[in-house]
Amino acid sequence: MIEYRNLRVAVLGGGSVGSQVAALLLQHGEELAARAGAGLELVGVAVRNPDAPRDTDIPAHLITTDAESLILGADIVVELIGGIEPARTYILQALNSGADVITANKAVLANHGPELFEAAEQVGAQLYYEAAVGGAIPIIRPLRDSLAGDRVKRILGIVNGTTNYILDRMDTRGDELREALAEATRLGYAEADPTADIGGFDAANKAAILASLAFHTTVSLDEVYCEGITGVTGEQVRAARKAGYVVKLLAICERITADGVEGVSARVHPALVPLDHPLAAVHGANNAVFVEAEAAGSLMFYGAGAGGVETASAVLGDLVSAARRHVAGGPGVAESTHANLPVFPIASAITRYQVTLEVNDEPGVLATIAQLFSDHSVSVEAVSQSVAGGQGAERPTATLVIVTHEAIESSLAATVASLTASPVVASVVSVLRVEG
Amino acid sequence: MIEYRNLRVAVLGGGSVGSQVAALLLQHGEELAARAGAGLELVGVAVRNPDAPRDTDIPAHLITTDAESLILGADIVVELIGGIEPARTYILQALNSGADVITANKAVLANHGPELFEAAEQVGAQLYYEAAVGGAIPIIRPLRDSLAGDRVKRILGIVNGTTNYILDRMDTRGDELREALAEATRLGYAEADPTADIGGFDAANKAAILASLAFHTTVSLDEVYCEGITGVTGEQVRAARKAGYVVKLLAICERITADGVEGVSARVHPALVPLDHPLAAVHGANNAVFVEAEAAGSLMFYGAGAGGVETASAVLGDLVSAARRHVAGGPGVAESTHANLPVFPIASAITRYQVTLEVNDEPGVLATIAQLFSDHSVSVEAVSQSVAGGQGAERPTATLVIVTHEAIESSLAATVASLTASPVVASVVSVLRVEG
Repeated sequence: MIEYRNLRVAVLGGGSVGSQVAALLLQHGEELAARAGAGLELVGVAVRNPDAPRDTDIPAHLITTDAESLILGADIVVELIGGIEPARTYILQALNSGADVITANKAVLANHGPELFEAAEQVGAQLYYEAAVGGAIPIIRPLRDSLAGDRVKRILGIVNGTTNYILDRMDTRGDELREALAEATRLGYAEADPTADIGGFDAANKAAILASLAFHTTVSLDEVYCEGITGVTGEQVRAARKAGYVVKLLAICERITADGVEGVSARVHPALVPLDHPLAAVHGANNAVFVEAEAAGSLMFYGAGAGGVETASAVLGDLVSAARRHVAGGPGVAESTHANLPVFPIASAITRYQVTLEVNDEPGVLATIAQLFSDHSVSVEAVSQSVAGGQGAERPTATLVIVTHEAIESSLAATVASLTASPVVASVVSVLRVEG
Repeated sequence: MIEYRNLRVAVLGGGSVGSQVAALLLQHGEELAARAGAGLELVGVAVRNPDAPRDTDIPAHLITTDAESLILGADIVVELIGGIEPARTYILQALNSGADVITANKAVLANHGPELFEAAEQVGAQLYYEAAVGGAIPIIRPLRDSLAGDRVKRILGIVNGTTNYILDRMDTRGDELREALAEATRLGYAEADPTADIGGFDAANKAAILASLAFHTTVSLDEVYCEGITGVTGEQVRAARKAGYVVKLLAICERITADGVEGVSARVHPALVPLDHPLAAVHGANNAVFVEAEAAGSLMFYGAGAGGVETASAVLGDLVSAARRHVAGGPGVAESTHANLPVFPIASAITRYQVTLEVNDEPGVLATIAQLFSDHSVSVEAVSQSVAGGQGAERPTATLVIVTHEAIESSLAATVASLTASPVVASVVSVLRVEG
């Protein structure tokens, strides 16, 4: 029997992830100790309501409502409460007491990352967060360590399982958004209040985390452009598939150049993804992160993006890392923001667009429309016109679908404003960015 | 200008990976130093022939043929020679002198891994090898660190780009093996002597490395069952697609139980992969590693499995890790073989099989064949019979394609022996394992 140094592990939060972490730690403790080179003693699980029903049982003597006392006696604190407060305060208390912290909390990282990393560095503690993006999918270590010798050019991520489930169902079953959302709620993929998911805010948190890490630059949540899926219609999804695309909510982090200055951009919005792109094959509530790097080329990381036991896998991986560091000593890896690149707003983003218009069905309209795009230096790649619609309307209309070459977002926005004001355009039906 | 401690980096090997590592290190040295917290000074590149043509220029003053002197003056040694000797001797010299070592050399790891890790541990040095499996794809860190809190059940890897290119071409273009191999050679995907690739030996090296890492158990190369693709015919690939499969060369590492004992198994062979499995969509020379873990569920890592600049990305990631460790101090992560599970031979493997037979086209044959399977406790899932063939032969024959439920390899092998000896079987056309 090998004798290990014992590390005291405190878990904050007894929800689906917290209870799984506790259960797996109790079940596989010896195995994890052998890998870590240190014993991992679960000293308590802090919960708000000790009597709440849980996915897995936590032994009663480990349950406490006194998070602060638990934190003070721990070598490693696992924060699985979620949200900003009291999570932020607890993480700071833990770090300031010299404990390493493991968190799955994307919101606190996206909103207060620099403060937390600074606190960790001050005392030589570490903050681990593999579970905060992509659930069980290893993406933090690959970006921080494996790609540390490369230059990431772009990340395209499906990082929210709820919206991917909804959009996939709209694509494969022909559902409207509200039907797919109802089904997602029924299956437990969507929260009672689905705003954070379908509004894109959850994905925006993750985009801020990924962009900061990949570009060695602090990217805060308010610098991430965020557009959710609430405007996506069944008709758009069907039209996309006919044109060879699938609609996905993407978190996009890129190196871009604006006015000759190198910088970065982070944005979340629904996008058209070509059917032959690896991200198009990510179905259901799965997540995937597609990374383009200068030397490595294209990489993809795929798996379950959420779920209690899946997220617990990532948390326990961080726990073994934290324990190994305790045994090894040394300050560990500090977050690097050495590059400190400017973060550009969405207006500087460059991508392709699909613009769907309802126009008057009369001679010369196409020329007028084409001129409007040209006036704003937006180059048209393809135009297709559907059979005339607008039956019963005052005058006959036709649907034009225009796909542009790469254009700057600000130019496209100006084009759309002109289109809206044009007398030959009955309505701008949709504007979708084309990615991948 | 920040002043860093300077680390002396020696590169052994000036081939496609070595010259790219040197070029990128010279080009991005400052950026890497900022991430590592230490300067990375390339002190030399040891080559066999200084005048050999190279993909990228290495400054003449850095080139040397004296590898041993270069090693002695280095803090970090990057071994990119490949093969067993002199790579093994150089790695041991470097570790024994206290240098960290980075290698992309799967052969030396699969054949001498325990000796090398032991040498590293003795002096408190580290051996990094992210580039040895899957080229640019981060797979070593995810297995060693991210999944350290989980239990890996199975790995299915497409880890050899040459054979994947060949099999993909046979599938998508209808080539025979020799045509696809000729094209792979012309494009530089296959070596002049393709034995290591098409014989499965390269993949077997990688299977030994992955199995050792995933199961915390020493799995040596001679414990890996190895069957290459030389027996795969265009007809098999076409028949597979018709039946809903694609043929892939897989490296399979599994936890299995044999005679009530828990152990592991590692095998490389062509396998039928269902068309809707993520591995079926891995085309060309790309690699992908599909991992099933108890808590994390299914994960996939995808990207370029080879190529000079892609592999250099993984090497440089290791270089930054090594430099961070030099700055941080501490012993780093030791390889864990705590589980030390028994490694079972292929005879204990359990999988599904597709057996294609040419049989006499006469009444009662199917019953006879079915009885033979049953006699060996191999349960049949599906049988399909093609239109009678064997025109011009002495007597009419038919083709039977039998897919089994899961069976133990030894039982299947005994079944095939009985089939071969049976008077109603004209020939056993092929036996393929079904995975995924």
